[in-house]
Formats: sequence, structure tokens, C-alpha cells
Amino acid sequence: MTGSPFDHPFLSGLVGDDEIAAYFSAEADIRAMLSFEAALAKAEAAHGFIPGEAARKIIDTCAAFSPDVASLRSATARDGVVVPDLVNQLRAVVGAEAAQNLHLGATSQDVIDTSLMIRLKAVVFLFAGRLFDIVSGLDALDRKFGHNRLMGHTRMQAAIPITVADRLDAWRGPLATYRDRLTEQSFPLQFGGAAGTLDKLGPQGPAIRASLAQELGLTDTKHWQSARLPIADIAGLFTSISGSLGKMGQDIALLAEAGGEIEIAGGGTSSAMAHKQNPVAAEVLVSLARFNATVLSGIHQSLVHEQERSGAAWTLEWLLLPQMTMATAASLRLAAELIGNIKRLGTV
Amino acid sequence: MTGSPFDHPFLSGLVGDDEIAAYFSAEADIRAMLSFEAALAKAEAAHGFIPGEAARKIIDTCAAFSPDVASLRSATARDGVVVPDLVNQLRAVVGAEAAQNLHLGATSQDVIDTSLMIRLKAVVFLFAGRLFDIVSGLDALDRKFGHNRLMGHTRMQAAIPITVADRLDAWRGPLATYRDRLTEQSFPLQFGGAAGTLDKLGPQGPAIRASLAQELGLTDTKHWQSARLPIADIAGLFTSISGSLGKMGQDIALLAEAGGEIEIAGGGTSSAMAHKQNPVAAEVLVSLARFNATVLSGIHQSLVHEQERSGAAWTLEWLLLPQMTMATAASLRLAAELIGNIKRLGTV
Amino acid sequence: MTGSPFDHPFLSGLVGDDEIAAYFSAEADIRAMLSFEAALAKAEAAHGFIPGEAARKIIDTCAAFSPDVASLRSATARDGVVVPDLVNQLRAVVGAEAAQNLHLGATSQDVIDTSLMIRLKAVVFLFAGRLFDIVSGLDALDRKFGHNRLMGHTRMQAAIPITVADRLDAWRGPLATYRDRLTEQSFPLQFGGAAGTLDKLGPQGPAIRASLAQELGLTDTKHWQSARLPIADIAGLFTSISGSLGKMGQDIALLAEAGGEIEIAGGGTSSAMAHKQNPVAAEVLVSLARFNATVLSGIHQSLVHEQERSGAAWTLEWLLLPQMTMATAASLRLAAELIGNIKRLGTV
Amino acid sequence: MTGSPFDHPFLSGLVGDDEIAAYFSAEADIRAMLSFEAALAKAEAAHGFIPGEAARKIIDTCAAFSPDVASLRSATARDGVVVPDLVNQLRAVVGAEAAQNLHLGATSQDVIDTSLMIRLKAVVFLFAGRLFDIVSGLDALDRKFGHNRLMGHTRMQAAIPITVADRLDAWRGPLATYRDRLTEQSFPLQFGGAAGTLDKLGPQGPAIRASLAQELGLTDTKHWQSARLPIADIAGLFTSISGSLGKMGQDIALLAEAGGEIEIAGGGTSSAMAHKQNPVAAEVLVSLARFNATVLSGIHQSLVHEQERSGAAWTLEWLLLPQMTMATAASLRLAAELIGNIKRLGTV
Repeated sequence: MTGSPFDHPFLSGLVGDDEIAAYFSAEADIRAMLSFEAALAKAEAAHGFIPGEAARKIIDTCAAFSPDVASLRSATARDGVVVPDLVNQLRAVVGAEAAQNLHLGATSQDVIDTSLMIRLKAVVFLFAGRLFDIVSGLDALDRKFGHNRLMGHTRMQAAIPITVADRLDAWRGPLATYRDRLTEQSFPLQFGGAAGTLDKLGPQGPAIRASLAQELGLTDTKHWQSARLPIADIAGLFTSISGSLGKMGQDIALLAEAGGEIEIAGGGTSSAMAHKQNPVAAEVLVSLARFNATVLSGIHQSLVHEQERSGAAWTLEWLLLPQMTMATAASLRLAAELIGNIKRLGTV
Repeated sequence: MTGSPFDHPFLSGLVGDDEIAAYFSAEADIRAMLSFEAALAKAEAAHGFIPGEAARKIIDTCAAFSPDVASLRSATARDGVVVPDLVNQLRAVVGAEAAQNLHLGATSQDVIDTSLMIRLKAVVFLFAGRLFDIVSGLDALDRKFGHNRLMGHTRMQAAIPITVADRLDAWRGPLATYRDRLTEQSFPLQFGGAAGTLDKLGPQGPAIRASLAQELGLTDTKHWQSARLPIADIAGLFTSISGSLGKMGQDIALLAEAGGEIEIAGGGTSSAMAHKQNPVAAEVLVSLARFNATVLSGIHQSLVHEQERSGAAWTLEWLLLPQMTMATAASLRLAAELIGNIKRLGTV
Repeated sequence: MTGSPFDHPFLSGLVGDDEIAAYFSAEADIRAMLSFEAALAKAEAAHGFIPGEAARKIIDTCAAFSPDVASLRSATARDGVVVPDLVNQLRAVVGAEAAQNLHLGATSQDVIDTSLMIRLKAVVFLFAGRLFDIVSGLDALDRKFGHNRLMGHTRMQAAIPITVADRLDAWRGPLATYRDRLTEQSFPLQFGGAAGTLDKLGPQGPAIRASLAQELGLTDTKHWQSARLPIADIAGLFTSISGSLGKMGQDIALLAEAGGEIEIAGGGTSSAMAHKQNPVAAEVLVSLARFNATVLSGIHQSLVHEQERSGAAWTLEWLLLPQMTMATAASLRLAAELIGNIKRLGTV
Repeated sequence: MTGSPFDHPFLSGLVGDDEIAAYFSAEADIRAMLSFEAALAKAEAAHGFIPGEAARKIIDTCAAFSPDVASLRSATARDGVVVPDLVNQLRAVVGAEAAQNLHLGATSQDVIDTSLMIRLKAVVFLFAGRLFDIVSGLDALDRKFGHNRLMGHTRMQAAIPITVADRLDAWRGPLATYRDRLTEQSFPLQFGGAAGTLDKLGPQGPAIRASLAQELGLTDTKHWQSARLPIADIAGLFTSISGSLGKMGQDIALLAEAGGEIEIAGGGTSSAMAHKQNPVAAEVLVSLARFNATVLSGIHQSLVHEQERSGAAWTLEWLLLPQMTMATAASLRLAAELIGNIKRLGTV
């Protein structure tokens, strides 16, 4: 029962991505939130801020905990965030002393933003690998067909002949840049407490934050709870990736329409015309590019994030970023498939 | 396993809508697509275009058919649309003669666009009812608190005193307009065949189309397969609705921040600050307004729908419109709840 | 010295429109704002709210007044709106008694929004005429080439043969709808005073507003100063128009690329390739469609218009709507030119 | 006669910027395009590709040339680009031998994109300086008021007390990042010839390109005529800057509404209410943030840039990027003014 094509029982075949979708499941989110609470307890105990015994109980509980999701859902409806109920559920099972040391000094946003970063880090690693594969696929096409002739087109008119290598260069150039950017992307821990000041941790705040970041494999930075540049940066990078792949898709669709300079396997069939071979993946690359280009605007609207935390701007991110990630995943998946299906490019 | 908050195991408590989500399930889509095939057979038989017996078999089969969704998914991955495989599955069970009369003269887009319109018609009817309730809720507030004093604010500064009735008027005015527009909205059948010309139906094409529209309770118009104004119109109306409700939400959040002129029940709790009562629904109305405002842009990008059918532009609609509908549903739901939770407005 | 291509010394040849630009000059705005002040004085005198003599002086002064624009500019920098300084300049010349009766009960937004509606009404009339001409041009093509054969294309692949008339139908259908919508579009007076309540006019407020609307040829409605649906409606209509013309442009560019089914006169030349004939107008129709589709999003963001008047949301409209109007004007101009330049469509 | 508020006779007082507008005048563009042609001749002569005497004539002519702008305008209407006519005008005066060596191996896009980069480089340098000043202004506020108390707000509700320094940190953090990014931003030469292959320059192409880049102070890279990441990167950076300044503006407007924790000089006056002091600059920062957030979407749509050069996607950039630059300029100017006008922040 889903309005989202990325998770849809049949549309996900086209625009979904099983591998990446797993990182945006509620389950993955819960696991990452629990790992935040466990790592926080560990860091706070390491700095003598909470008892080691309480931390151990919290860590053990988080490792195995499976929350009541129906309760999470109704609580989210009321609180706007899932964390208060998740923490309450944990407190009910962790034992009295640990309960009062759980989530100490943290706020909902710390948990939710950090969970997102943990999962984005994993996703971006996979994206970098996919981009590597796509670039390799283009390299292989270059070796096979690079010397072939292709009619260069400007302003939708035949211009002068170029080589297939020239066209492949235009496709590959930005992709190599993205691969490097994905690799260098940093994923900041969010940890600020109620209003970003780590007010409950006193002078130990920064040290605990540093330990927490290290424990979670994230970058230690000042809180960014109302300064959402990390989100805008990642969204911009994803949109650039799908945009460049959309350009490749558009080019391939135009080659397929003209017909003489490309052969593609695996085209889609039609319910009305048996003779057709539709360049479905090429077209969908364009759709996904335009989807991300559209949605990026909302991410930037959410930079206008009022005061210490904006429910409005923050919730808007949740409506957009997971889907941008899914669209980027599908774009990378389809680009790799499409490149693999190109049987000939250009003419001898 | 979903990246979409509208269908998410716990976020849907906040931004989902069970009633409307049902219309965007794969199951509802399949049911509506089957009702298209059944109605088409009925209309074609009524005009003597296919045998009555074939039509009866098609109608009976469609009434009970439950497709292999895994097959639909993998076929959609290949074909870019679900229809060829759905029709193939139907043909395999409907019997040889009926098989060749099934889907006769239709194309995938006829089935998919029409399925959407069938469901949007039902959704819009429910939306009109919700708007009626919201306007009634505002009327009730007006009766209770309309004479109360409220400080008018312009450019984020206290301006001159107004009454609560004045503010309620500004909220209610556009909502009454939307209610009327929803009621008057037409839902066109899409039926054009392979390239919009109903080429296989010959001179009977328009008459069959008229019967089909009547059977499905939709408006009979020329095909709109590459002229997507009906989609843009509905998307614009949805976005206007959520935009006006977002204005109300923003106003209420600002009243709640100032504190003296409103009392709201049911505010959200915080994981870090026990004393807080967050105006969660008011904020989320702003998020949903900005979401739809963002996404509407993509719907209008898809008006650039090349030739007789653009896979790129059409697929883009699928990525956007269902979610806009869900966001509008959540916006209407939350607005009604929020109005019901207002315990006092203005000062005596 | 302009960053806007719509008014640019040489780019305006491509994307400008002299006829419509005249309605968005500062001069036209000032003239319309002065006509608001004159009509307000007239209406208030007619209802005995201000002395007839004061009204006459105001009307005479407004008819001939030419404000100090440098002063308007520096005052706008300070006030965020031009009206306080414009009214001050008028007061300095209108005589003492008239001065205190000028702008009585009005606020800046009344003047600025109404000036916009006065000018949009004139523009929309011209747009309707242009659409009429475009539809006539398509009718003429239909008479000449309608029976010609054209290869129908779906999903960027040759599908089945259609006629030129079929393609022209798809282009023309929405345009006829827009022509009707433009003709039926209403243009509301904005008149509400400081906070929308016409607080200074007492019980005569609505009657004065009705007279004012009649005097200015606008629709009499309650103020819409924080309920910006009229802006969203017009912006949506403009975007739909340029979107449908963009579809036509894209189709023509694709025909021009394939080459066999169209002959266009007046193509652009290249600085590098003497042999080329670029379908410049067709491409720019796509650019303008995507421009408006992009910008429409911001208009809908501005529906979240807080309290009685939002400086933020209102100023955002000024950054967007005039340019959308200019883009739509250019789109209509180029579409008419392009249609006139089509020398052959389809094959016999 | 301008629909653009950035260049408008009086609105430019609010949202314009004289310093930056100068870089987007037609004159500045022409000067930069002429410097491209001069530098190209110099580079080609240095590599023995054209005679030194021809280069000298071209360089001298370009230094003093003032084209017929009316002719440029009508040619741009026809060609979609200004360059063919500009080059023709130059050829008419430069003498016969130089004429055939002018613009040799270049295409319109080389000239136009490079002109943009020359000017953006200068603009970005100025922006970095402005950001430096803004950060200094925030530092000064921090020294004066950093220890003051401020009520922290989350989800539009009072949360816990913070210090003014805490709030200033949230504003300043991303600005310091932007300052660094602006400083590190590279500005690539565009030079590819008709289809990106420098086909007319033979094996000397890369060496001439390197010399040309050095002469113009730009980065030497492969052509990016259909791979528009440099445009998307700069647009994203500009949008992030105005977004973070919009967050500051929103915060200040909310402080001004509440009233007790801020004193601002220089507020705007009202035509209807003498007592008001409107936080105009704060509000306009929000408008400009939302403007750029809206428009960024179109820049990313234009990444789908088909084949070797897309008239549609490229023209779309022209409709967007200059205005984004102007909006960013106004945002930086207003932010500096606003910070300078803050007379008190927080409470002792």
C-alpha cells in the first residue's frame, strides 16, 4: 500500500533499488538509532559521565531491542518525531538505573540526524562503487567503439562528425568527478542536546562528542541542527549525479530514435505494437534526473531553518532526501544496465 | 522497507493517511486497470466490435483476477509499464477467443492514465468532504471566538488589533473556493490506442470511447496522452490546497510561539524537555505545503511531453503525483485535527 | 545594465517582448498606482467619506504626477515597498487638505497588488489574442498539411503512422482551453487597509471597495492580502500555457533533427558551421517552458504567507511573477513566429 | 522598462546590487567576449597557428570595439546567440587578413561560456570579501553581546536558555565554509570548437587551449559544453549562501516579532501605520533564499543537456544564473547592512 514508486510492488522493478532501499527501511533507521544510543552510553561511560554498568545494560539492550512499531507510529503522530517513544520503550526494559542514564544530554534531532548520516555513509560508499563500475563500462565501450564515427549534434541539428570517444568523454567526465566527491564526502555526527549547547554535559561535552563520533565512524563537528549545509551538499551531489546520467540517457534515447548509430539489447515491449523496442532505461534516466532536480529545490527551501530547530524545515527534509537517494540509486543501477546493453555505438 | 514517509511504518503516523493511501496501493491500481479492461470489452461488445461472449469472459475474469505481482514487477523493469505483462497474464486465463479481443485497440497509457483518473475521482470526492469539515470547524471556531481580539501582524510586527473572525476569514476564504473546485473537477477518460488515433477501432472509435467513459464514470474527451493539462490542473489544485493550509499552520505556529492568544491541546512532547508542548501539526502543515510547492514544478516540467508519448515525462508524473496526493491528504487530515484541538483563540 | 535576459539589450531580441514589457516597466507600475489613488479618492468622495474638492485635487494631481524615482528607489530600500514615499511625494504637491485625504484607509499592499492586477488584466487580454492567432495558425497548417502523413513516435521510437492533423490536434487542444481560461480569468481588486479590515472606513468600507473596483474595472472581492490564490492561479495558467507551447517546440525540434517531415524557414545561423539551420525558436520554447515550470514552485512557496501580511512571501512574488509573465509573452510570440515559419509538415 | 526587480528603477533599491549588476550588463558581457577573441588570437599566434600581424590587428580592434547593439539584438533573435553577429561586425572592421583569422576554431558557446566565467570569477572574489565582512560583523556582535542570554527556541516554542554566542555560532558556521569554498572555486575556460573536439586546431588544440586559459586567468580543462557541472556547482554554492543568510534573516524577523531580545535600527516605515518599524532586510533575506532555492531546480534541469550542445538547456541557464547571482549579491549586501543595524542582541 504505497504511493511511492520507489517501494512499489511492481513499479519498484523500474525505479526501485533493493540494495539501497534496505538502508531506508524503518528497521534500518531503528537499528541506527539504537546504535546511537548505545554509542552515546559507551562514550559517556568512558568519560565517567555515567556508570559503566548502566552503559553496559544500555549497550546490551540496544543490541537486541525490537521496539513496538505500532506504538512508535502513534507516538510519532503526536510528537512529530519517533525518538521520545523509542527512548521510553527502551527505558521500560533497560532497568531503573540505566533508564536514567539513557539518552542523557541528547535530543531527538541528535538521534535522527545521526541515524541518517550513518546510513548515508554506507549508501555513498555503494554509490561510489557503482560510479566506478559505470566509468569502467564507459571505458570498455571506448575500447570497443571509441574510434567509430558519430555525427555530432548541436541545437538538435547534425553539426560535424565526431568520434564515439568524444561523446563518451562528455558522459564520463563529470562521473569521474562525482566518484571522487563521493569518496571524499564527510558524514558529520549531529550531537547538540536540547538546543545545540550540550547543556547537560558541561565541560565534558566536546570530549564526549568526539568519542561518540569516533565510535560511530562519523566526523566530529559542532552541531548542525539548524545549519543544514551537510544535507544540502549531499542532495546537491546526488542531483548532479542523476543529472549527468540523465544527459547520457537523453543522448541514448535520441540515438535510439535516429536508429543508425546505436544497437541496444533489452528494450521494452509495447502492449499495442509488437515491433517496438523502447529505450526504457534511457528514458527513465531522464525522469530520475528531472525528479531530483525538482526535489533539490525543497532541500534548499529547508535551509531557512528557523531558530534552534524547525519542525517545519526538518520534516520537509524527511519528505525529500530519502527519495532523492532512492532516485539516485535507481539512476546508477539503470545507467550500469544500459551501458551493459549497448551492443554497438557509432559507425565504422 | 520504504523511503517514502507517506507509507513508512512509523512516519506515516505523522504524514501518512490510511484512507487515501488505499487508493494508491498497487492493489487499487490493479483493480482499476482490470475495470478498464472489463469496461472496454463491454463497450466494444455493445458496439458489435467484439463478440458478446468474449466480452463476458473478459468481464468475469477481470472481476476475480489476481495477477502474479512478481511477474508484473520484473516485466515493468523491462517494459517501463506494467500493462503488457498484466494483459499477457489475463490472456493466459481468459480463453483463446477472449484473449484476442482483450485490450483491443488500447495501449498501456490508456489503462494506466484511466486507472489514475478512476482513483483520483474517488480521492477528490473524499478531499471535498474533508474541506467541508475543515470549513465547518473554522465556522465553529468563529461562533465561539470570532469576537475575540487578536493582534494583527504585518511584516512580522504587531500592526493593529483585528478580531479572530478576521483571521478565520483569511484562512477560510480560499478553502471554500477549493471545495467548489474539487466538486467541479472533471476526470477525463484516456483512450487513444497506440498513437492517440484509435487506429484499430475505425469509425466506431469515438462511440466506443463515449461508452467506455460512461461505463467508468469519467468524462469523455479526446485523448490527452501527450497533452497533460489534466494532470497539471489537479496537481495545481492539490498544491493550492496544501499551500493555504500551510499558511494556516504557519499562523498557528506563530500564535503558539507568542503564546498568549491561543491554546492548543494535543501538542507533541520532547525527548529532552518535559515542559514543552510542540505545535507539531501546525509545523507539518508548513512542511507539506512546501513539499507540494516543490514537487509541482516537476509536474509542469512533464508538460514538455514529446511526440505521441514520452516515457521520460510520463514516468516523471508517476514519481510525483501520487505523493502530492498523499501530502494533500495528510494536510487535510492534520488541518482538521489541529482545528479540533484549538481550545481558545484570541483574547476577550 | 541588466541581469535579466527579458530586458537585456541584446538577449531580449530572443526572449523579450516589447509589447508586454511595457506593462512591467516602473513607469507603468507608477501610472497604475496613481490610478489607484485617484480612483480611491473618487470612490471615497462619492460615498461622502472625503470632500469632493480634495478628491478632485487628488485626481488631477495623479493624472499628471511624475515622481522622483531616485527618491522612490532609496525609500524602497528602506521601507521594502515604494508606496510610503510615493504617497509622501504626492502629499507634498496635492495641497494640505487633499494631502490628509489621500490614500485614506489604504495600505501599501492595496496599491501594489491592485496595480499588478490592472496590468495583468491588460496583459491577459493580449495573451488571449495571441493564443487566438496561434490556434488560427495551427488551423491554417491543418488545412494545408492536415492530410499529410507523419510517423507517430512513442517513447522516442517510431510507432505507427498518424496524420499531421493528429499531431496538430495534440498541440491545439490545450491552447483552446487556455484561450477560454484567459478570457474568463477574473482580476480582483485588493483593498483591505492596514490589516485587511478596512478599519478606517467603518461601515462604508464594503461600499467604497465596490465603487473602487468598478472604477478600476476589477472584480470586487474581500481582500486577499494574505490569501494569495489569485496569484497562484494566474501563475499556474501562464505556466501551463508555456508548458504546452514547450511541448510543441520540443516536437518541432525533434522533427527538425530527423529532417524529412518538416521544412522551417528562418532558422538560426552558427558562428562555426555555415551549413546549419538551427530551430532556435523551437528550442527556446522548451527553455521558457522549463523556466516557468521552475519558477512556479516559488509562487506556491509564497502561499505560506504568514499573518496579515508577509514581507518575505510577498517580496518573493515580485521576484517571480513579472518574469513568468515575460516568459509567457516570449513563448506566445515565438510560437506564433515558429508556426508562421513552417513551410511544410509531414509527407504526402 | 524592466520586469526584473534586480534591475528595476526603484525595486533595485531593495533587491538590486550596483556593484555586481555591472558584471551582468550587456556591456560587461561584450567586453569579456571581445577579450576572449583577443586572447584567442594571441594564443593562436603564439603557437604559429595564425600570423602575428593578424593577431595584433584583432587584439587592437577588440580593445576599442563598440558593436552595434541593435544589430546584435536582431541577430540574437534569429541565431539564438549573439556571437555570429558580433564576429561579423568585428570582421567588417578588422581588415581582410585578420578577418579570416578571427574566432578561428571557436564556436559561439566558447565565447559565451568563457565570458560568463571571466565575470563570475570577479563576482565570486567580491562575494568572498563580503562574506569575510559578514563574518567579521558577526564576530563583533559576539564580542559585544555574546555573553547575553537568549531564549533558545525549538519547534517554535521556547526551549532552554542559550547565549547570544550560541546563536551567532549557528549563523556563522556555514558562512565561514562558504568563504573558503568561494576562494577555492575554479573557473574553467570553455573552448571546444563546433562540437567540442577543437577540430580546426589539429594537434595544437590542447596547447592553444592552455595558452588561452592562462591568458584569461581561467582554469584549463577539457570543454564542458554539454557537461554543465561547473554551472551547477556555482549555482549550488550561491543558493547555499543565500539559504544560510535566509535562516539568519528568519531568525532576526522572529526576534523582532517577539521584540524583547533585539534592537534594530533602520527599520522600514509603513504607509498605513506610523508606529511600525518593519524588519525589511530580514524578511527580504528570506525572499532571496527562497528565490534561489526555487531557481536552482532549473539549473539542475539543464544538466539534461542533449548531445554536443542543447539550445534549450543552455538558454535556460541564461534565464536563471545571472538572476541567482544578483539575488546572492543582494543577500550578501542586505545581510551586512542588517548585522550593522543590530544595536542589541539578547538580554543581560
